[in-house]
Amino acid sequence: MAMPPSTHPRRLLPLFLGLFQGALLLFFALFFTYDEPSAQLEDANLVASQVYSTFPFFQDIQVMLVVGLGLLLAFLPRYGFSALTHNFLLLNFSMQWALVLQGLLHHFHHGQVHLDLHKILISEFAAVTVLISVGAILGRASPCQLLVMATCEIPVYLASEWVIVTCLGVLDVGGTITIHVFSCYFGLGVSKALFRATQQPLHPKETPTPRSDLMSLVGSLILWVFWPSFVAVLCQPGDAQHCAILNTLLAMSASTITTVVASSLLERDSKLSLGHLQNGSLAGGVAIGAVADMAMPPVAALALGSLSAAVCVLGFQFLTPFLGRKLTLRDQCGIHNLHGLPGILGAAASAVAVLVTSKDISTSHSSQLSPAGGNASEMVEGQWGDRGAGGQALSQAAGLAVAVGASLLAGLLTGAALRLPCLAQPPERLCFDDSLYFKIQDQAESPGPENSAEEGALALKEQV
Amino acid sequence: MAMPPSTHPRRLLPLFLGLFQGALLLFFALFFTYDEPSAQLEDANLVASQVYSTFPFFQDIQVMLVVGLGLLLAFLPRYGFSALTHNFLLLNFSMQWALVLQGLLHHFHHGQVHLDLHKILISEFAAVTVLISVGAILGRASPCQLLVMATCEIPVYLASEWVIVTCLGVLDVGGTITIHVFSCYFGLGVSKALFRATQQPLHPKETPTPRSDLMSLVGSLILWVFWPSFVAVLCQPGDAQHCAILNTLLAMSASTITTVVASSLLERDSKLSLGHLQNGSLAGGVAIGAVADMAMPPVAALALGSLSAAVCVLGFQFLTPFLGRKLTLRDQCGIHNLHGLPGILGAAASAVAVLVTSKDISTSHSSQLSPAGGNASEMVEGQWGDRGAGGQALSQAAGLAVAVGASLLAGLLTGAALRLPCLAQPPERLCFDDSLYFKIQDQAESPGPENSAEEGALALKEQV
Amino acid sequence: MAMPPSTHPRRLLPLFLGLFQGALLLFFALFFTYDEPSAQLEDANLVASQVYSTFPFFQDIQVMLVVGLGLLLAFLPRYGFSALTHNFLLLNFSMQWALVLQGLLHHFHHGQVHLDLHKILISEFAAVTVLISVGAILGRASPCQLLVMATCEIPVYLASEWVIVTCLGVLDVGGTITIHVFSCYFGLGVSKALFRATQQPLHPKETPTPRSDLMSLVGSLILWVFWPSFVAVLCQPGDAQHCAILNTLLAMSASTITTVVASSLLERDSKLSLGHLQNGSLAGGVAIGAVADMAMPPVAALALGSLSAAVCVLGFQFLTPFLGRKLTLRDQCGIHNLHGLPGILGAAASAVAVLVTSKDISTSHSSQLSPAGGNASEMVEGQWGDRGAGGQALSQAAGLAVAVGASLLAGLLTGAALRLPCLAQPPERLCFDDSLYFKIQDQAESPGPENSAEEGALALKEQV
Repeated sequence: MAMPPSTHPRRLLPLFLGLFQGALLLFFALFFTYDEPSAQLEDANLVASQVYSTFPFFQDIQVMLVVGLGLLLAFLPRYGFSALTHNFLLLNFSMQWALVLQGLLHHFHHGQVHLDLHKILISEFAAVTVLISVGAILGRASPCQLLVMATCEIPVYLASEWVIVTCLGVLDVGGTITIHVFSCYFGLGVSKALFRATQQPLHPKETPTPRSDLMSLVGSLILWVFWPSFVAVLCQPGDAQHCAILNTLLAMSASTITTVVASSLLERDSKLSLGHLQNGSLAGGVAIGAVADMAMPPVAALALGSLSAAVCVLGFQFLTPFLGRKLTLRDQCGIHNLHGLPGILGAAASAVAVLVTSKDISTSHSSQLSPAGGNASEMVEGQWGDRGAGGQALSQAAGLAVAVGASLLAGLLTGAALRLPCLAQPPERLCFDDSLYFKIQDQAESPGPENSAEEGALALKEQV
Repeated sequence: MAMPPSTHPRRLLPLFLGLFQGALLLFFALFFTYDEPSAQLEDANLVASQVYSTFPFFQDIQVMLVVGLGLLLAFLPRYGFSALTHNFLLLNFSMQWALVLQGLLHHFHHGQVHLDLHKILISEFAAVTVLISVGAILGRASPCQLLVMATCEIPVYLASEWVIVTCLGVLDVGGTITIHVFSCYFGLGVSKALFRATQQPLHPKETPTPRSDLMSLVGSLILWVFWPSFVAVLCQPGDAQHCAILNTLLAMSASTITTVVASSLLERDSKLSLGHLQNGSLAGGVAIGAVADMAMPPVAALALGSLSAAVCVLGFQFLTPFLGRKLTLRDQCGIHNLHGLPGILGAAASAVAVLVTSKDISTSHSSQLSPAGGNASEMVEGQWGDRGAGGQALSQAAGLAVAVGASLLAGLLTGAALRLPCLAQPPERLCFDDSLYFKIQDQAESPGPENSAEEGALALKEQV
Repeated sequence: MAMPPSTHPRRLLPLFLGLFQGALLLFFALFFTYDEPSAQLEDANLVASQVYSTFPFFQDIQVMLVVGLGLLLAFLPRYGFSALTHNFLLLNFSMQWALVLQGLLHHFHHGQVHLDLHKILISEFAAVTVLISVGAILGRASPCQLLVMATCEIPVYLASEWVIVTCLGVLDVGGTITIHVFSCYFGLGVSKALFRATQQPLHPKETPTPRSDLMSLVGSLILWVFWPSFVAVLCQPGDAQHCAILNTLLAMSASTITTVVASSLLERDSKLSLGHLQNGSLAGGVAIGAVADMAMPPVAALALGSLSAAVCVLGFQFLTPFLGRKLTLRDQCGIHNLHGLPGILGAAASAVAVLVTSKDISTSHSSQLSPAGGNASEMVEGQWGDRGAGGQALSQAAGLAVAVGASLLAGLLTGAALRLPCLAQPPERLCFDDSLYFKIQDQAESPGPENSAEEGALALKEQV
């Protein structure tokens, strides 16, 4: 499976990226423009208020993806540069690629595509799927492989999202089904097809050190803080958005506490596992996405958060080792536990919520007890009108099935394609090491008498 | 005093937290709901604009508490996971606990409690008191002890805040008296009652390393940046909020420069002490809270910031060692210097500001010189109407007395309760060490031939 | 050149800073006040909406300057405290100094200066020039020298900005010419005059370690994320601001990809250089500032971003070594490549954009193709009216010339002044070392039997 990296395949990266950037410039020159300036003062005020209502959310999401997720992935002690940089590069590449595809496909019949912050935001959401999927193969794939994977995943995501949201009418404001479930099974498919290997011993560079774990913990805390912006940014402004923010806060707060409980119960001596904590406390945010703006009481958000954290921790403890043994499936970051299981839970919760809230509404139409977003309620009557709550619940289930099926299939095919020798997959012994992709300062590799600045050497001196 | 941790008391943590989370779900199911969706478009716009005006402030505060404060506390080199994680856990626990208590106590007569972002924000403020108080005993208390402490501190805080703000009518928009002074003396009370010990030598793991100090410095810079949001979030929108932001910026900027001056003058060779810098530059933010939205000229904010930084640095240099010697009082993070002294200074400043500005207003009612917030001015006439400026100044002093008295008493009682053996206080030799609470990768504890992933070992190999 | 630091010159720091802070208090007491509270409800709403539209941008910029830039500069392994702290101190000092100067000079004839968030923001922009210029001499200058440099640079910047923007009418909403080009050549001038030395060998503490490089990478990612706020904050709300945000996003995204391409092509084995990545991905943000709100198609932003990244990487690879050899010019952080070259490119692009868009407008006045900001278009007709597009393009060129000329001259003079012995420039062997300015825990400097807290030692003990 492994292939020694030569100079030739390495050259593929700048070639591929350079061609991409050139083609992108051409596409933009031909098809993209900005909105015309608003002629009336009222329109200008409208644009301004749209900017002020979306931009802070957008910045929060950028921090999550670039800094938070990057640091979270930096738990491999000798792979920090690669984790941060590949994440950063893939975000930019995938966002531009999604922008072009969306521009061409969805808006072609309008002639010029009018670019705005909302379109960029949608493209970022598409890019998120790539960043999540990478978690399954982190440290074992070359940048070329990652870029090819992004090239394949984005169009499949856009198609799958179109089927799920537009055709099936699935309610999923926070991307639980369309983003989290999809990207998880795509990543697992890629991993399975790429590493058909039998079980391998733990790689010596695979184990986090306290220092790299600390950076990773900070990353997960950054994700935790800004997650409500991710879930709520695409909600209808007003009650629905307010409700989505509150539900996400409650779900993630419950997740955090339940994770500590579950991890303490499972680990020897009631010690906490950092991996559990980092993932479990985010699990509530994954699950709440599908129901965040629905008409449900606050306790439902708390319960869903608790449940998804428990499922996530149990997944790490039992399911991941099981899948590793039985299916020889590698899931480096445990994305199945953070995105797969809580995503399925959230999808199930959305079906239940649709059924339960429709009853609430028919029985107690304007009672004190009927909570939640005006938009959700309107949707109940408007959108479900002809299909009914049962039909909508079935839609939610169908959406989940589409996401899982499409992503697994596409992921397996993509993973097979990534085995092409020209993509320069690193051999096992060179995995998890920045020095393959980065010009690291000399003293880290070939020490000599002049490396007095190197901290390790200093520590050594002090100890001798 | 010390008690070897056994398996049994450790089990208390998941038990306690699990019961808490279960009870919370019950309470939420019974008593909490969301606002009804707005029927009119105007109401929906109002909700939207409230979300947009509060949510960015709220996110800033979340970053402060989860990332900034967590990193600030991570200056103990082998206690970084615990500092970040216990801070994170306590924030979530205390916030939920405050939410339940407030819901039950304040709103019981309305039947259902309508949850909104403002109520969650108020609960976060309550949780802040716990996070500050922990600073006094950081590294020497078990998670169980910290949770019991939070359980005791939140209701006392809510009662004290009710007396100070509602009964006494104290003006304290940034929580100088209600949050900072209260939490400081509560923490010191706990520390005194918990560690009755005589002076002990410096623990070998108590000294920061350059690496842990750097993380801590980044944490304090994050706190510094977002502090204006903390002070201004509860202000009346408009002039008062604008004024509070400006005053906080000025006070903290002056604090920073004065801290450098004071630290350089006190340290040998005019070197800076990082501890001084990290705390002194934040001292202005603590002190300004009580006067941030009052009618006072910008120079007052600068002067208050300078003064509080000087007091904070002098406190570290002289008062902390003195209290340690005379009262055998341990204050691990120096919360008395950051929250106690500047808090008292801010309370005094608020009394002075009330007296001075009322004169200004009576003498030059609409002159060019009368600055500051419309709301503050209205309050001058409206709220103080019957009690007068002198009465209001007395109120400020009374509020300070209540905060100090209630917190010291409650803290001493809580600290005594924390000595219960079942709470698993770690023995002295195991303090300041993550390995007591976290499953740390093996090589850090029991090295063997397989610990090749450990960075130090790798560096060593490469150099030999 | 080098002068051993004695106790005497070190005392200058607190003396200088203390006097500054005292004088500042006096100035503020005499000249500064706040706006009067709004009498009408409408005015209060206006103030509120101004706060909500500016404050989130302002906070983003604060994070950039305090945390992002501070971490970016912390790539020197033993100079992290100094990098973060000197940056922090200079920001506060320069901001206050700019506030006083602007208050006195620009507003003197109005009597009292009314302080508001906008004035503080403008002062922060002035402070940015100092923070950038420091990059040229990072690690080799004492805090006293840095403060004197800030004292000289701020008034020159204010004068130069007044000439460029007010007199010449240069369009430069993101500060490409007024901030980036100016501060770059000021810093290079200081460096040249301060270190007249011949070439020196690499200082052993000058080489980053993987750990310090990781912190620096995180800093540059933070800058990347929040850069759109920096460019767009001073735009007209509405279309122009929306357009500036989008252009900055596109330019920086293209920069990132082009940097990876260029760095891979230039480095041996197609490896990436972190220095290239950190600077190149920001270069687009520097260049776009002058044209961000102009009427140009999205492809222009992409192309400008790509081009500036390529120029930046080529500068690092070829120009910096060349300047080092030929002019013995030291540029520690490569500010010429990040701020100088992309700044000049951006200025040139602005001249081209002025010429091209004016043609567009005259030929296709209301066509679908004419994109971009209403304000820019209005300016096209209004502001250029009498001078025409050609005149405006000449203005842009003249502005660039003023920025380069004024900054180089002032920088050289300032650098000569910094050679004063009383400013305590550290001798070469003590450069790049925190221990000169910070009270570092003993064990880091003089290891002995008592350094048991040092992490390495602890690990060692546990392993023996």
